[in-house]
Amino acid sequence: MQSQRFSSLGRPAILAAVTMAGVLGTGTVATAQALKDVQTADTPLVLKAQGSFFVGGEKAEQTQVETGGLGPGGHITVNQMYVRYMVPQAGAGNVPVVMVHGATLTGKSWETTPDGRMGWDEYFVRKGHPVYVPDQVGRGRSGFNQAVSNDVRAGSVPPASLPNWLRFSDEVVWPNFRFGSKRDAPYADSQFPLGAIDELSKQGVPDLTYGGGVPNPNPTFKALSDLAAQLNGAVLMGHSQGGPYPLAAALLNPAAAKGLVLVEPGRCPADYTDEQIKTLARIPILAVFGDHRDTPTGISTRPSWQLSFEGCQQLIDRLKAAGGQAEMLDPSARGIKGNSHMIMQDRNHLQIADLILKWIDEHVGTRAVKKQ
Amino acid sequence: MQSQRFSSLGRPAILAAVTMAGVLGTGTVATAQALKDVQTADTPLVLKAQGSFFVGGEKAEQTQVETGGLGPGGHITVNQMYVRYMVPQAGAGNVPVVMVHGATLTGKSWETTPDGRMGWDEYFVRKGHPVYVPDQVGRGRSGFNQAVSNDVRAGSVPPASLPNWLRFSDEVVWPNFRFGSKRDAPYADSQFPLGAIDELSKQGVPDLTYGGGVPNPNPTFKALSDLAAQLNGAVLMGHSQGGPYPLAAALLNPAAAKGLVLVEPGRCPADYTDEQIKTLARIPILAVFGDHRDTPTGISTRPSWQLSFEGCQQLIDRLKAAGGQAEMLDPSARGIKGNSHMIMQDRNHLQIADLILKWIDEHVGTRAVKKQ
Repeated sequence: MQSQRFSSLGRPAILAAVTMAGVLGTGTVATAQALKDVQTADTPLVLKAQGSFFVGGEKAEQTQVETGGLGPGGHITVNQMYVRYMVPQAGAGNVPVVMVHGATLTGKSWETTPDGRMGWDEYFVRKGHPVYVPDQVGRGRSGFNQAVSNDVRAGSVPPASLPNWLRFSDEVVWPNFRFGSKRDAPYADSQFPLGAIDELSKQGVPDLTYGGGVPNPNPTFKALSDLAAQLNGAVLMGHSQGGPYPLAAALLNPAAAKGLVLVEPGRCPADYTDEQIKTLARIPILAVFGDHRDTPTGISTRPSWQLSFEGCQQLIDRLKAAGGQAEMLDPSARGIKGNSHMIMQDRNHLQIADLILKWIDEHVGTRAVKKQ
Repeated sequence: MQSQRFSSLGRPAILAAVTMAGVLGTGTVATAQALKDVQTADTPLVLKAQGSFFVGGEKAEQTQVETGGLGPGGHITVNQMYVRYMVPQAGAGNVPVVMVHGATLTGKSWETTPDGRMGWDEYFVRKGHPVYVPDQVGRGRSGFNQAVSNDVRAGSVPPASLPNWLRFSDEVVWPNFRFGSKRDAPYADSQFPLGAIDELSKQGVPDLTYGGGVPNPNPTFKALSDLAAQLNGAVLMGHSQGGPYPLAAALLNPAAAKGLVLVEPGRCPADYTDEQIKTLARIPILAVFGDHRDTPTGISTRPSWQLSFEGCQQLIDRLKAAGGQAEMLDPSARGIKGNSHMIMQDRNHLQIADLILKWIDEHVGTRAVKKQ
């Protein structure tokens, strides 16, 4: 492990396109070098508490075949949401921040970056906020409901009953996460640590959210809302697929949502009723988007991220017209160039984090007691 | 959250069978009360570092259908192993401990217990050991290879190609994890926090290890071995299904395995060659089993845990005959009664942890610098 001086200053974009193409051309076998690249902060992390727990979940009765055949069937739990947390010793009473990940990913998104720098989870804790990182229902340590797969395997239901599992290939990730126009063709100013892109690839897990594998409405909405209530109020932050989840959770229990941060949301709903807008207008809301939004994603359902940006701008306009404190954070308009869709892992990720922390301080109103 | 005085003293088995049957009879809907039950230690946790990374992984080329159809197919990463870690500020140079979970579970096994007490992960850190908690390849945040499922869904390969997903129903868990003779019929002296058993049920995730969904040999063995090497030596601890994994990892790189702790291993191999025994005999090895081992599990492939115990005793005897430092820890033979298969979550879990820590101190030879 290396020593790390964590500052909020973005480092210059030292990796030019030509260099990167060379680095990435050396092979497609993923390295096993991640641990040696992990950096250590100069000062200890002092926690009042850390650990994990679940929110929600319900019992389902399943057959022996559905539970995999080793012993009798019976009751299992489904639709629970795993949550890992850290509470700083200084600032334990500050407003908690819940960080929800995006499609084909898990809570790992917010932890140590692919190139071994401190994740936003720890950075927000060091800035005095208790941080709660879930895995969405159906993903990672939250598990999923395997019954239909075992039924299909046994031949009792047709193959079309299977959920569709989504994963992004590297070829999809490059243009869709806006690292470059295509695989191994990075933008010259990209802030993503492209030398560690194989480590990002390892963060990918199968996602059944769009494929009929999670109940509708997604139980993650209610779980986030319940988590915020159990915390006596929280800032709900979501990324990408999870970007609009804070809105959905807030509508279930507006009093528990102290602020919403939508990080590169895949979409901002355009069909809210005036009543829903009135409710959301009582909650401070920030949307954050990176750079290179006009470039083609290669995905037909969302040809460019500029469309997501514009949809969120329209929601912000509606909220402001209803008296809300809603705001767009577009670092590229402030001269901060090259941020990707994985903005929380970009090389200048602490610079972006500081902008969000400042917004939380100013709009949610609970300052960090002590900056560590 | 409650304040917690964490001592290593086991608390008395206050829950009698009649009481428990009443508590558990109140309904089968899982509670959403986990956070309020989470306890906080009296002293802060001071970490030199924490975070996560991956070990291993390799690229696979998949079709658009196999990756779920949103955008073109291409390369994804499979067979990687997610690892979360905490390094204590005091004792950062001590021997690290890697904790590998069992079947249908994830690294969550070692974190906060179902009733909200400190997990072994944090306790070992507080005792001065860096702790590394993986999710097995194919499970939790390590993801799995979804290609065959999407191929079956598309009709291009037969349903029998699907892996078998295993989950333990509550009806299997009660006798198999030795909480009681059957569901809701606890042993009077059970050490497991049975009032929180629905929280254990939430820890369950589908497991394809036995069902043809993970390559053979299991990539977790090599990943554990590589992790131990990257750490310049580690104690490898495995539970249940993961119980014999430390043996497999040690045979791949004996020099990196400083000690092996097999916690309630499902089996200890009986077919090691004399050469393999000679290699393993150079590494201190401890097997740990709880109580009530003679009771029927209800699972035909392992009718009782006493069979696992006896198999491990035979391995220990072979290792000792070859000059090894191998040992059985059977708390029930020392008057510590009622421990379950989930011994790291039992009410006296810190008492058991202290016995293991003492064994590490005495046999691996790296003491904690400072007891926090």
